[in-house]
Amino acid sequence: MCRFLIFKGRDPILLAHLLTRPEHSIINQSYDSRLRIDNRRPINGDGFGVGYYTPEADPELGDGPCVFCATTPAWNNLNLARLAEKTKSSMVFAHVRASTAGVLSETNCHPFTFHSLMFMHNGQIANFHRMKRKFASHMKDEYFLYVQGGTDSEWAFALFLDTLDKLGVDPSRPAGVNSFGHEMIRNAMLLTIQYIKDWSKQCSEGDTDIEEPSLLNFAVTDGHSVIVTRYITSRTEEAASLHFSTGSKFIEYEPGQYKMERRDRRQDVILVASEPLTFERSDWVTVPTNSILTINNQTVLLHPIMDEFYQTDPSVPRSSNFAASRGLVSPIVEPQASTNVINLPPLEREGRRRLSITV
Amino acid sequence: MCRFLIFKGRDPILLAHLLTRPEHSIINQSYDSRLRIDNRRPINGDGFGVGYYTPEADPELGDGPCVFCATTPAWNNLNLARLAEKTKSSMVFAHVRASTAGVLSETNCHPFTFHSLMFMHNGQIANFHRMKRKFASHMKDEYFLYVQGGTDSEWAFALFLDTLDKLGVDPSRPAGVNSFGHEMIRNAMLLTIQYIKDWSKQCSEGDTDIEEPSLLNFAVTDGHSVIVTRYITSRTEEAASLHFSTGSKFIEYEPGQYKMERRDRRQDVILVASEPLTFERSDWVTVPTNSILTINNQTVLLHPIMDEFYQTDPSVPRSSNFAASRGLVSPIVEPQASTNVINLPPLEREGRRRLSITV
Amino acid sequence: MCRFLIFKGRDPILLAHLLTRPEHSIINQSYDSRLRIDNRRPINGDGFGVGYYTPEADPELGDGPCVFCATTPAWNNLNLARLAEKTKSSMVFAHVRASTAGVLSETNCHPFTFHSLMFMHNGQIANFHRMKRKFASHMKDEYFLYVQGGTDSEWAFALFLDTLDKLGVDPSRPAGVNSFGHEMIRNAMLLTIQYIKDWSKQCSEGDTDIEEPSLLNFAVTDGHSVIVTRYITSRTEEAASLHFSTGSKFIEYEPGQYKMERRDRRQDVILVASEPLTFERSDWVTVPTNSILTINNQTVLLHPIMDEFYQTDPSVPRSSNFAASRGLVSPIVEPQASTNVINLPPLEREGRRRLSITV
Amino acid sequence: MCRFLIFKGRDPILLAHLLTRPEHSIINQSYDSRLRIDNRRPINGDGFGVGYYTPEADPELGDGPCVFCATTPAWNNLNLARLAEKTKSSMVFAHVRASTAGVLSETNCHPFTFHSLMFMHNGQIANFHRMKRKFASHMKDEYFLYVQGGTDSEWAFALFLDTLDKLGVDPSRPAGVNSFGHEMIRNAMLLTIQYIKDWSKQCSEGDTDIEEPSLLNFAVTDGHSVIVTRYITSRTEEAASLHFSTGSKFIEYEPGQYKMERRDRRQDVILVASEPLTFERSDWVTVPTNSILTINNQTVLLHPIMDEFYQTDPSVPRSSNFAASRGLVSPIVEPQASTNVINLPPLEREGRRRLSITV
Repeated sequence: MCRFLIFKGRDPILLAHLLTRPEHSIINQSYDSRLRIDNRRPINGDGFGVGYYTPEADPELGDGPCVFCATTPAWNNLNLARLAEKTKSSMVFAHVRASTAGVLSETNCHPFTFHSLMFMHNGQIANFHRMKRKFASHMKDEYFLYVQGGTDSEWAFALFLDTLDKLGVDPSRPAGVNSFGHEMIRNAMLLTIQYIKDWSKQCSEGDTDIEEPSLLNFAVTDGHSVIVTRYITSRTEEAASLHFSTGSKFIEYEPGQYKMERRDRRQDVILVASEPLTFERSDWVTVPTNSILTINNQTVLLHPIMDEFYQTDPSVPRSSNFAASRGLVSPIVEPQASTNVINLPPLEREGRRRLSITV
Repeated sequence: MCRFLIFKGRDPILLAHLLTRPEHSIINQSYDSRLRIDNRRPINGDGFGVGYYTPEADPELGDGPCVFCATTPAWNNLNLARLAEKTKSSMVFAHVRASTAGVLSETNCHPFTFHSLMFMHNGQIANFHRMKRKFASHMKDEYFLYVQGGTDSEWAFALFLDTLDKLGVDPSRPAGVNSFGHEMIRNAMLLTIQYIKDWSKQCSEGDTDIEEPSLLNFAVTDGHSVIVTRYITSRTEEAASLHFSTGSKFIEYEPGQYKMERRDRRQDVILVASEPLTFERSDWVTVPTNSILTINNQTVLLHPIMDEFYQTDPSVPRSSNFAASRGLVSPIVEPQASTNVINLPPLEREGRRRLSITV
Repeated sequence: MCRFLIFKGRDPILLAHLLTRPEHSIINQSYDSRLRIDNRRPINGDGFGVGYYTPEADPELGDGPCVFCATTPAWNNLNLARLAEKTKSSMVFAHVRASTAGVLSETNCHPFTFHSLMFMHNGQIANFHRMKRKFASHMKDEYFLYVQGGTDSEWAFALFLDTLDKLGVDPSRPAGVNSFGHEMIRNAMLLTIQYIKDWSKQCSEGDTDIEEPSLLNFAVTDGHSVIVTRYITSRTEEAASLHFSTGSKFIEYEPGQYKMERRDRRQDVILVASEPLTFERSDWVTVPTNSILTINNQTVLLHPIMDEFYQTDPSVPRSSNFAASRGLVSPIVEPQASTNVINLPPLEREGRRRLSITV
Repeated sequence: MCRFLIFKGRDPILLAHLLTRPEHSIINQSYDSRLRIDNRRPINGDGFGVGYYTPEADPELGDGPCVFCATTPAWNNLNLARLAEKTKSSMVFAHVRASTAGVLSETNCHPFTFHSLMFMHNGQIANFHRMKRKFASHMKDEYFLYVQGGTDSEWAFALFLDTLDKLGVDPSRPAGVNSFGHEMIRNAMLLTIQYIKDWSKQCSEGDTDIEEPSLLNFAVTDGHSVIVTRYITSRTEEAASLHFSTGSKFIEYEPGQYKMERRDRRQDVILVASEPLTFERSDWVTVPTNSILTINNQTVLLHPIMDEFYQTDPSVPRSSNFAASRGLVSPIVEPQASTNVINLPPLEREGRRRLSITV
């Protein structure tokens, strides 16, 4: 079970508004069982990563993202709590993970980066161990050697990089507003999924486990365009949940409570997340299963991924059983009237205590 | 919210049978929300400690306990998983904690030790910050300087040591079967609670928070006798939960499922725990609120703590609201018919994978 | 053995230029034995902290510093390596420590902060355990309760805060360019040292260890003024080393090699460090033993601390034996002709590998 | 730069006698610059692992080893310090490493284990990144998938397992006194080296880096027999250093000072180490470059590895320049008359402080 979050804003936002202060941030989701779906597993205490691009046009800072990751639970990480209060960015990826594959290790923490590119994954490639050799033999040395950890997700990113390369685009090229372009990234992403599908078929022949689908919610960015998929290799099951929200501002109307403000239909702020970050149901649009979302110039585009797993008849419902069994379905949660939820903003519990009083 | 567990056996037990294999071990309790009570808090992912006395009569190993502690979640700790499979002991303390006070740090991990003594706490001294000076000024330098972390629990242990000392017993004396004796340890424990009560009263005068009681479930051992309290500074509220179980053997009747075997009324195995470790309701006896439990020579004794908070009239019920609000009440949980609980013993998920298959 | 570094610039500097890139940064000092003096001890692998004020005049970021600390060796910390490449500040404190007192724990990491104030210590209060009670009983509750770890340094900072308070200045006041003022901070610092001296005398009477002096190199800032002491409670021994350097720019003239550029006698850049960061002997001025350094408006002031340990006769030399025995003396090191020093900038070894090459 | 140590005894030894108490233990070597050779690198603060077989014939404990590893410096690891004082074994592997390849991560810590087998490596496969594909494509899936980290050493172990398998021996078979047999393990080890040599040649054609040799000091055991190589792919350079010592007892004649006692030519204790653990030059025999050491039934055998890198003419000296440049040569160090070495046994500095004094 993992969760991820993407922020793209016209203006930079304080990371704390995304990560630590919202009562329903992905970090707080990870320990508030009222918000949890997956009872099966250790609730995402396993690792955390945030990657952000530095906002200023300062050549000394480079064009690649800065990544902070941790193998201790995010909610107890003082460094994260302090950095979130002192850092702003207009392009942020954040990821909380439970180790379904790969031992707990910083090398297994999302987001993964390569020069100006950043990548994360929510889901699981089914029977990845049978395909691992395919991944290894398909790639150029450069990307084969890129992999340092043991997760299917890191291999998927390496495959994406190799796919860009095979499309004639050097993934280490310096990023600029149009260096990659959203079409190119989207194409490479769709091809990456195609490879995984093909290998999955080749490797599962005659196997009784053939039924288990892969959950491929991928997100990638070059700091300018963002591509996110909500995808499953099944015609009858739903993919892991994915939502987005746009507006003019993401505001804290009372401590820990956020909502998306909408004025003039502007999309100054775009959030994409595996689970809604606010309790306002109307803030969030659900991305349909097996589609691909693009953020380009503060605009959100949605395209269906029309392959053998696409369901053309909208009256045929998908089951959420499989994704739910993996803890990857998120209902819109209602705030409860009588909770014993802590009223203080999250940082107060740990990070700010030191600064403010220590009582 | 914390949990603790005590094992005292005539024969040594493999730590894995207590810590990692039982589906309802204190470690697994900490991430299985079906077994969780406290929705308010980060589910005990915050720290873990186990202390055990080496079983052999080997002078080279000394008479003090060995402590292994971690600030990363216990369920992901490979070292713990491996040690638990390779270590046996007949006297074990284990503790899982959520940092309600004190930053996450190895110095704040229970159990605390001093020469042959070992101590842990489940609960919280209310308004400890107001009493901290009392603790500091009351003690001899030796115990004042013992404190290295920031928790009320460590101060409570230092107070216990100082109390032993004031009773004429050097807490650093070598342990032997009768070096301290269960009466002496029990007396020191009762006096320790008395000090905390007194200081609590002195420090709370005129304060509106006066109502909040302290939850003082303490456990201490010298490797031979064990003293455990279930105590609250209130006449109307229940203390944090505490249970015990005795039998001839603690057995795994199917993978992850344990029960207490009882033959001949022998008490070869004694378990004391903040929550039952098995689903067999009949395995467990609830320790009454405000009483003190003694293990001496594989025998369990229960004494009431008769002070101003003792409820002589058994028909007057206590409320469990306060302890529940702190996540410290544990009902006996029924196993569920249809669960999606993982069938493998817990270690299989992480620790054994490396050794056995790595697929 | 510890080391510290202070940067104050008219313009912000990339932290990497201070922390990770210079071949002779305090991090690299800590593992390059050619630069090490103290053979006795684990070479500062024990903990690291950096605190910086955010450069922009952005009220959302607050006026307190951001602190990142680690208990793993700084040279292997990927998060630090990445943050240093993406973060700029004009007011930086950095500290590398070997645990001479206090267990390894994030609560024991320098710099310590309190609202807008930041503090660090290089040295050791002799026989602190005898004085600890004096510290505790002298302070207001607020500062007594501030202390969370086990080091003499954290207690010294709490004493400094209490001293400010006793001087009529609330240490939690919002910082502004003149909120505290360098005179006030300097006075509070001198008084802090006075208290420590007094208590040291009171607590050591009749003791044979009386000879051991305290090494009190303290640094404190409110983000605007900086006060640093080089002090020892001895008339015959030298204090722990301290140097400063000023210039118009701190530049990397070849990979890993830095020097201070000086144009027009401007002091746009001020560095204070326990050991020189460059191999240019002329870049660095040695602060005399038992004096106090002030940075105010990009100007450096030096005042002697004239008390019973002041040596008025400059012809009487101090011995460096004691400070050297504590690993706290730093000679100016010459670069060597034939070294097997790694040519790559330090980050290349770990941090940048992932981003830039990953081959 | 790494170091390793092997202990095989007729009787179990307290791990502290190997790891923490000797002034010249591999842990203390790692921070005592007097004992250090490699000034180039972060002195082995990077990771630590110890693996030991449980001494008792207790089927519940299994036949595989227990491994404890850490990514924080060994000298500061309280858990290690405490376990070493409370654990005995007659078959121990220990390894201290500096990350020359692979990020710092528990998955990269030696020793590696597979069922009853345990493996470690001191050295480096030259240009491993060019050979990685050969390793991957050569192996059966089982061993290909075994690899979880990013080091040449883990791949070398996987290759060893695959080689055993290709020789018709299932590496997961239960260990018994003769389950593998020292001849079989030695053969598989020699073949493993042969593969690496072959692939090295195939992958380096036309390359200018061809000169750099691989340093292949491998150690492997099934809990009964031990095979250790001292090997380099060069005719003119020396391999990384390797020594052994045998005797009737390994004794501490004064705190922190150990020597090998020899009575009746018995070999009750066998130590193999990359650097001598005692200051007694006569305690240690140097294993010749390019030979293979076998421990079978408390007897040490040495065989030359006679291939193209074997130097038949003993009058032709090898240079130690290359191994020295990698920090892998260890002279016999003399104890110094006037040292400021700490007199206390190492544990006193950290681990025992809590228990015994806490002043």
